[in-house]
Amino acid sequence: MRMYDIIYKKRMGNELTREEIDYFVRGYTNGDIPDYQISALLMAICFSSMNKNETLYLTDAMLRSGDTVDLSSIDGICADKHSTGGVGDKTTLIVAPIVSSLGVKIAKMSGRGLGFTGGTVDKLESIDGYKTSLSSSEFLSVVKENGICVVGQSGNLAPADKKLYALRDVTATVDSIPLIASSIMSKKLASGADTIVLDVKTGSGAFMKSKDDSLALARAMVEIGKGFGKNVRALITNMDEPLGYNIGNSLEVMEAIQILKGYKKNDLYTLCIELSANMVSASLGIDISTARELCVNSVESGNALCKMKEWITAQGGDSSLIDDEERLTVSPYKRELLAERDGYISKICAETVGEASMLLGAGRKTKDDEIDLGAGIVLKVKIGHLVRKNEPLALLYSSDESLFLSATEKLSKAFAYSDEPPKKEPLIYETIT
Amino acid sequence: MRMYDIIYKKRMGNELTREEIDYFVRGYTNGDIPDYQISALLMAICFSSMNKNETLYLTDAMLRSGDTVDLSSIDGICADKHSTGGVGDKTTLIVAPIVSSLGVKIAKMSGRGLGFTGGTVDKLESIDGYKTSLSSSEFLSVVKENGICVVGQSGNLAPADKKLYALRDVTATVDSIPLIASSIMSKKLASGADTIVLDVKTGSGAFMKSKDDSLALARAMVEIGKGFGKNVRALITNMDEPLGYNIGNSLEVMEAIQILKGYKKNDLYTLCIELSANMVSASLGIDISTARELCVNSVESGNALCKMKEWITAQGGDSSLIDDEERLTVSPYKRELLAERDGYISKICAETVGEASMLLGAGRKTKDDEIDLGAGIVLKVKIGHLVRKNEPLALLYSSDESLFLSATEKLSKAFAYSDEPPKKEPLIYETIT
Repeated sequence: MRMYDIIYKKRMGNELTREEIDYFVRGYTNGDIPDYQISALLMAICFSSMNKNETLYLTDAMLRSGDTVDLSSIDGICADKHSTGGVGDKTTLIVAPIVSSLGVKIAKMSGRGLGFTGGTVDKLESIDGYKTSLSSSEFLSVVKENGICVVGQSGNLAPADKKLYALRDVTATVDSIPLIASSIMSKKLASGADTIVLDVKTGSGAFMKSKDDSLALARAMVEIGKGFGKNVRALITNMDEPLGYNIGNSLEVMEAIQILKGYKKNDLYTLCIELSANMVSASLGIDISTARELCVNSVESGNALCKMKEWITAQGGDSSLIDDEERLTVSPYKRELLAERDGYISKICAETVGEASMLLGAGRKTKDDEIDLGAGIVLKVKIGHLVRKNEPLALLYSSDESLFLSATEKLSKAFAYSDEPPKKEPLIYETIT
Repeated sequence: MRMYDIIYKKRMGNELTREEIDYFVRGYTNGDIPDYQISALLMAICFSSMNKNETLYLTDAMLRSGDTVDLSSIDGICADKHSTGGVGDKTTLIVAPIVSSLGVKIAKMSGRGLGFTGGTVDKLESIDGYKTSLSSSEFLSVVKENGICVVGQSGNLAPADKKLYALRDVTATVDSIPLIASSIMSKKLASGADTIVLDVKTGSGAFMKSKDDSLALARAMVEIGKGFGKNVRALITNMDEPLGYNIGNSLEVMEAIQILKGYKKNDLYTLCIELSANMVSASLGIDISTARELCVNSVESGNALCKMKEWITAQGGDSSLIDDEERLTVSPYKRELLAERDGYISKICAETVGEASMLLGAGRKTKDDEIDLGAGIVLKVKIGHLVRKNEPLALLYSSDESLFLSATEKLSKAFAYSDEPPKKEPLIYETIT
């Protein structure tokens, strides 16, 4: 088999065989095939695409390139969720205890934030004492004991994907549906859950800007999951404005706790109920409306909050912070952003809010940047709210006063105003099963 | 400027600016931009193509990447020809003396053969004493003295093209019209001629298998030449069967001499008259039929043959070989290939004949292979000839008897038979000016 022939075949728009896909994934991972041939192939895939079978083979080859998590010793069903990334997306912190409180196990590996989107592991680290790094046996025993454990990614999951992604990142070959779908799914499948619910974000603050692309990605991922015998669902959800009100690590944990306490019934709450209900419905084989009711009850009864405390305690965290979330550390300096005019808020560009939050110190520009866990933004308004000039739109937090100038300037650009109430996009566009 | 943005822009099908093209050509040549980004860009160009301006800028950037030949000290017009490569293509050996005999200067750099097509420099080396390597001042003085000089490529012509071509060769990005056109033209323009006649081969034995692609390539190259203020023409010519009868280095020189002696008026003769006439017509500004008549007269009067002797002598070659071309060294062992059945010869696949000739030792598989200058094939028939079973189709020459088995087997596959006279394709399809 020659790499040249594989590139040429894909360039001509033909289907690659399982053997050919295995050959290039293995050859690239072990260094036998050079970057320049793989980048040419990746670009050919961007143009010629890959069909369902090819995408499945690619996922499988990347999955088999490294370690996989074995959850077979855990009784019952393990469920996982994955979000394609958004601003203010703290759903895992809410969904995990809801689902676990209903008897579905959560044995989850989460990532760190990069760029304008945050990472669950960073958020959890704003809880004093919480250990995001556990040994494999500690991880399994917390799941067995408490039905829930969320740690940072460990082990060598899908190293082929890691290497391919790094190459795609510098060769303008990231945004290809089969490449994205196989990349996400190879890692998710390596994490071992039985049920996977995918939250595919669409809109200005999402990686996928168009609904059609998001739908295509969701379908491709569900197909892959089914190909591996998993129970997979995908929700296409709106990321035109940030999710909820708080952006930044400890600020997001605070909002998650408030949701579980029933203080807020906003877009974040609705999405969390819907994600949880799909995880429960798919895992327990019950219909979605029953599952939805169970999830709402879990929040309203306090069971989910109780499960959160159990979870945080089991991983070494200070669960008294959950009783009084205002004690979570936020950065000492504050600034208000005021409305520039009277009017309806017609736009809150999630990407721009995420960038402003990063400028305040809440995110990483590069992998090695330190994060200010207490920095971030608390929105006072959402799209559709009517505001008066000089009314506060948001509160900015930082540990470094010198950062406010550029962050406030950036954040002000996220907002647009209209004289008429704007048409509001739905929060959840579609569910793919 | 970032290479990533240039790749992405081309991936999206947008036009690159002169600055962007200069940036990547310069950056790649000096090693600042890695192979893997360039190969991704090349693949994007294969899909998104390049328009006339981009192709011109690319040619210019590659041309400026190295040395150029300065022919300004030569009085009168210098003409050059380029063939995209075929089997049995010894036209330079015939065209150069015809054109020079009519007062148009030939100051030509030729290449060596690789794969199934031969190179003019290898052919000339089968003439005892002929020096293919001259210093720049020797080269110019031979042109000034004799109006003709043909040497191997020297100097560092278009190194960017060399580096890009090597990368294209291993990433399945060779066959893109703008990439081929700019590659050929950057080298031709670096060689300094005023008039350039391009012989774009089409058919089974050519790099371009389809007439449409050949036409598109010819048009792109003529456009580039005009963009540089050159007098450029292109002929689309048939390469379904080998050109003439002889394939192999000394065998081709022999046939070239026979053409100049007026012994043969075959397809090779016709093409040489047509190429010469176009070079003369474009260089002297006379109409093509007058130029054609001058070229025919040059052969029939013996002027072209006389010029060939002058040329060979000037470059140190034994011109007595031209008086008696049978004295050229051919390999000692011979085999006949016989017709398998009665019938018309309906096909003589040029590529297969070229490969058989390579198997006999006449060509190089890799750059460092030694050539057997006396090896090759003399065809006894052309497409359309009626043969009887066991009549000889070809005579094979080699210095190594053990090579005949595989070469004869290969060669026999080049021929096809039919019961009816086959439709013969024209030799020259079109002339692009």
